[in-house]
Amino acid sequence: MTQHRLRFGVLGVGRIGKIHAGNLSSQIPGAELAALSDVFPEDLAAVAAQLGVSKTVSDYRDLLQDRDLDAVVICTPTHTHYQIILDAAAAGKHIFCEKPIDLSIGKIQTINEEVRKRGVQLMVGFNRRFDPNFEKVREIVAAGKIGEPHVLRITSRDPSPPPENYIRSSGGIFLDMTIHDFDMARYLVGSEVTEVYAKAAVLVDSVFEKAGDWDTAVVTLTFENGALGSIDNSRKAIYGYDQRVEVFGSEGMVTVKNNAPNTHVYSDRTGIHSALPLNFFMERYKESYLKEMRTFVDAVERKQPVPVDGNDGLMAVVIALAAAKSAREQRPVKLTEVYQRSLSPCQIA
Amino acid sequence: MTQHRLRFGVLGVGRIGKIHAGNLSSQIPGAELAALSDVFPEDLAAVAAQLGVSKTVSDYRDLLQDRDLDAVVICTPTHTHYQIILDAAAAGKHIFCEKPIDLSIGKIQTINEEVRKRGVQLMVGFNRRFDPNFEKVREIVAAGKIGEPHVLRITSRDPSPPPENYIRSSGGIFLDMTIHDFDMARYLVGSEVTEVYAKAAVLVDSVFEKAGDWDTAVVTLTFENGALGSIDNSRKAIYGYDQRVEVFGSEGMVTVKNNAPNTHVYSDRTGIHSALPLNFFMERYKESYLKEMRTFVDAVERKQPVPVDGNDGLMAVVIALAAAKSAREQRPVKLTEVYQRSLSPCQIA
Amino acid sequence: MTQHRLRFGVLGVGRIGKIHAGNLSSQIPGAELAALSDVFPEDLAAVAAQLGVSKTVSDYRDLLQDRDLDAVVICTPTHTHYQIILDAAAAGKHIFCEKPIDLSIGKIQTINEEVRKRGVQLMVGFNRRFDPNFEKVREIVAAGKIGEPHVLRITSRDPSPPPENYIRSSGGIFLDMTIHDFDMARYLVGSEVTEVYAKAAVLVDSVFEKAGDWDTAVVTLTFENGALGSIDNSRKAIYGYDQRVEVFGSEGMVTVKNNAPNTHVYSDRTGIHSALPLNFFMERYKESYLKEMRTFVDAVERKQPVPVDGNDGLMAVVIALAAAKSAREQRPVKLTEVYQRSLSPCQIA
Amino acid sequence: MTQHRLRFGVLGVGRIGKIHAGNLSSQIPGAELAALSDVFPEDLAAVAAQLGVSKTVSDYRDLLQDRDLDAVVICTPTHTHYQIILDAAAAGKHIFCEKPIDLSIGKIQTINEEVRKRGVQLMVGFNRRFDPNFEKVREIVAAGKIGEPHVLRITSRDPSPPPENYIRSSGGIFLDMTIHDFDMARYLVGSEVTEVYAKAAVLVDSVFEKAGDWDTAVVTLTFENGALGSIDNSRKAIYGYDQRVEVFGSEGMVTVKNNAPNTHVYSDRTGIHSALPLNFFMERYKESYLKEMRTFVDAVERKQPVPVDGNDGLMAVVIALAAAKSAREQRPVKLTEVYQRSLSPCQIA
Repeated sequence: MTQHRLRFGVLGVGRIGKIHAGNLSSQIPGAELAALSDVFPEDLAAVAAQLGVSKTVSDYRDLLQDRDLDAVVICTPTHTHYQIILDAAAAGKHIFCEKPIDLSIGKIQTINEEVRKRGVQLMVGFNRRFDPNFEKVREIVAAGKIGEPHVLRITSRDPSPPPENYIRSSGGIFLDMTIHDFDMARYLVGSEVTEVYAKAAVLVDSVFEKAGDWDTAVVTLTFENGALGSIDNSRKAIYGYDQRVEVFGSEGMVTVKNNAPNTHVYSDRTGIHSALPLNFFMERYKESYLKEMRTFVDAVERKQPVPVDGNDGLMAVVIALAAAKSAREQRPVKLTEVYQRSLSPCQIA
Repeated sequence: MTQHRLRFGVLGVGRIGKIHAGNLSSQIPGAELAALSDVFPEDLAAVAAQLGVSKTVSDYRDLLQDRDLDAVVICTPTHTHYQIILDAAAAGKHIFCEKPIDLSIGKIQTINEEVRKRGVQLMVGFNRRFDPNFEKVREIVAAGKIGEPHVLRITSRDPSPPPENYIRSSGGIFLDMTIHDFDMARYLVGSEVTEVYAKAAVLVDSVFEKAGDWDTAVVTLTFENGALGSIDNSRKAIYGYDQRVEVFGSEGMVTVKNNAPNTHVYSDRTGIHSALPLNFFMERYKESYLKEMRTFVDAVERKQPVPVDGNDGLMAVVIALAAAKSAREQRPVKLTEVYQRSLSPCQIA
Repeated sequence: MTQHRLRFGVLGVGRIGKIHAGNLSSQIPGAELAALSDVFPEDLAAVAAQLGVSKTVSDYRDLLQDRDLDAVVICTPTHTHYQIILDAAAAGKHIFCEKPIDLSIGKIQTINEEVRKRGVQLMVGFNRRFDPNFEKVREIVAAGKIGEPHVLRITSRDPSPPPENYIRSSGGIFLDMTIHDFDMARYLVGSEVTEVYAKAAVLVDSVFEKAGDWDTAVVTLTFENGALGSIDNSRKAIYGYDQRVEVFGSEGMVTVKNNAPNTHVYSDRTGIHSALPLNFFMERYKESYLKEMRTFVDAVERKQPVPVDGNDGLMAVVIALAAAKSAREQRPVKLTEVYQRSLSPCQIA
Repeated sequence: MTQHRLRFGVLGVGRIGKIHAGNLSSQIPGAELAALSDVFPEDLAAVAAQLGVSKTVSDYRDLLQDRDLDAVVICTPTHTHYQIILDAAAAGKHIFCEKPIDLSIGKIQTINEEVRKRGVQLMVGFNRRFDPNFEKVREIVAAGKIGEPHVLRITSRDPSPPPENYIRSSGGIFLDMTIHDFDMARYLVGSEVTEVYAKAAVLVDSVFEKAGDWDTAVVTLTFENGALGSIDNSRKAIYGYDQRVEVFGSEGMVTVKNNAPNTHVYSDRTGIHSALPLNFFMERYKESYLKEMRTFVDAVERKQPVPVDGNDGLMAVVIALAAAKSAREQRPVKLTEVYQRSLSPCQIA
């Protein structure tokens, strides 16, 4: 039973990096957490000590030189992804990259071209696809149990807004938050989005307005197969993290509710009371982060295609950019306005 | 206890007319069903026999001449409402009219002007406002328990499409079906709609396309108070009549689910199974039709304003016309494009 | 359509009498409420005026002399049932009698003998059998969908104790309250009870102790078909009227929950909140009272056996007496200890 | 951060032993899995390889001689617990023992005496106490939110019977299965049981009858604080593992439902369908096994009392023996009939 374990390096040990590093260090039989990199030495030391990782570097390029390293997990800020991916691909490492790959369609296309040429895998961290609820919805839709999909509904609301400096560099609500829902939409309906209409507002906190951003949005999607979709987002749901989807079709409907920490129901003279949803993405999607990484390790081991690839990473950004354009220009925007699939990368606006 | 009972005539004894006539004949202490009119003598005779009503006429004008009649309930086809209301108002009768009042903004304004002058009441049949679920949502929103409303969601799907000839004369999905949701939106959020974007499609049956209509729609609403709304409609939900709403705000959220005929949950080796929703509007809204008519009778008796008046009837049509325009022109439409509230009726486009 | 309507007299216009009288007066096409009797003239006059009944008598025997009367509904105190039923049967009237028929097994047997001889119908008011929830459970069990029944669970709790003088004359918790559950047990499982073990306590109010009664009980039932059952009762559930059942079998399980006045779910920062159950039996079982009476009217009209007959009335009392004996003697009691089905009435202990 | 980790040996690597060993090896920061013992060399080697444990022995006594070992986890068959615990206590090891400690009250008392004398901790594996659902129920009851507890209900059903040879050596349904519910009852109500009435039957499989056992039971409990309880068990619930509890009191009620693998709700023309409960105890109580062991490690580290001690292990067996006696003798049995708390161990019947 002493099989070869894939050796991983995790780049960036912030909130998400720690989740992936923890999973790789003890929860995935086929993987070994071999090295960590981060520009903040204290965070790096703390995580390394906690997980018992001996190799740490501040410059990720030092890590890429390690010949025994099979793959990297990129959890650094978005603007650094482009260069890191190109470097990792050049070093022949398989790549798991957090979403979004980048905010520029052109750069993502360059990346996709590059990893293809280098023959390395690139998987994008749309972890929600690995959540048992959403997997079940996809399974039911894909099995034809709802017939032809007609209407998709996604409600996606955060428990509270991120810090102001995060907001300023986030790329805006559509590229930072709704992007998960855009990927979910493609995944659940099984068809490409062709048009977006986004209506957005600042209702939660004026800090979003100052940043040229919005905190509340209702987005209408049109799919290639004719289905319509509606997404609603808020940066602040006082009752907690709210993540529900529904797909309605010619033969039925499938819906998923939020996950709660327990199933208790308490009744007193004022009413019937139950638990709030699991607090935020780290609790809610704990299982999906683990399954996501297991899936990546498995795909690399078996040399099989990853289930969420560079094209998925690209399309979510394309929809998000179209949504932002729609919200700004107050009109429906066709995806072809921001991206021509038939054109070569360099011609993309 | 022998108080005066208000004497009612019901005009049109089709599906809805029979509901109102039945309620007036035995379920409302302060009301008496005195007369019926319909152009189809057989239907008229059958309903009269069943409810024990002795006075029946084929021409509603004969009914209006009855001095002892206090009020009329208009359940005839939409295109007849205008003339009947003007005649009833001239005869000094209080008026309950099924939705929509009319499909023309100008005519509705004339009607509203006329009933005001004649000093009679006009209540419009948005019965869903009297449903215990939606009343509870409104109560919670109005009490400030969700704080400022941010997002409204309405899912409204029929169990199956109406007959083809009904579709052709219905005025289209927005004026026939979504109009209920437009009224619900104003009622629940407590603010006027200012803009509509409607995306519509034919996914259920090509008969809608032939009629220049749609069978599936996703509508985005913008409210005066800043809230956003999303409505989705389908003419065919295979699992039955689907009527749910949700209002999300700064301090909480309130949601209502469908009503089921019973609460049974059956578990076998394949899963956990429960009952489909109440089949269609006559079962689902049975209670709301009764409460609606009781409210009308009560308002007339006490000479108090009705809770759903001519302006409510007007605004729902205005939003529906804007939605139809939006769907046709594929762009968001401001309500001021189809109706200027500040202008006098004759100047309305 | 002018068919003959069955003419009914209602005896006793207290809480339940008013429900039946109201249903007979306007909700059941085949019935006519012809007469009322009560020993309290003011109550009698009030109900008669409200329902527009012209014939009222203080002595029910005057009512029985009315040749045109087809049937009577007995809603007087339990101790009067015996004589009234014998008189009504002698007068050839069909009889609907509220539960329990009587507290004496011997008297109930005499009654059953008598109505058989006189050829009149006797239906007992176990209204819960006509509730849509419990009907659905019975339908699923009877259809074999749970296979062989193994375990029955009934939770039956009142919102608050009855007045002290009612408690003293009620016959005790088993004959007054659990009797409904004993009938439900036989109805749902479709098998006779053979043994009872009742553990009872006074936990709610010492007034029950003073009356030689209990307010809380857990009852174990053994059925002829081998199934086991468990009932729990309380005289005071602070959150309202709690009426749930579950039948578990070799192939599945069916459960019913409480009915609520609306389906709203309100989420705020403290939790998720929904409506308490419908308040008490008049709201909860409104529909079942109506359906029960419609069923009786229908059976009488069609000269078909009633679905809840004198034997059902008898068996519920037999189980209740065995339960009371078990609670007093603190041991399981076989039904044959209190009633020998094979013996003739006069031999019953 | 290089704190001392407690060194553990796991004795017995069957189904439960593997769960505990897996948790100790990677999920509990303060613990280290140092050694394994089992009489089956192949199972031992497989588990050791999988978890990377180098020290394995076939005779647990060899393991106890390891001076560096701090604690043992006993997952061997019940009849071996007595000797192993005495030996481990003599060797000064802290002890975690799976339930039941033993089937003899006298032996358990000897054990409890012994560990007290030796100054080692003994924790008993009632893992369900660490389940988030049941913890929440206890928290609500303990906080007084339901007032005085009046009625406890537990439904506990296995998905399918154990193998026949397991049944024969299991000690019977009450000592093998209901024992968990007996511990749960004491834990949730927070009061000792004083009397038991158990009605048991063979409805699932005649193999139970051949073993002198039952497969279905309904148990009535009386608590010292006056509350009543009802437990129902079945060895075979075709829809899966069914584990629900409810505590009803003077000021409210708290209920927990089953856990499902996902929250999906699928609606088609036949009904509304959702997922079956998590399949069996390894999925359902995965989290509680982990939390249980973390709690033990923590108590040993901090030299604090364990939350489920030898007395808890004893009382559950006492109730189970009383239940078995009650079922055999068909009468309620007071706990004092099988165990006098005030007497010294040697005087116990």
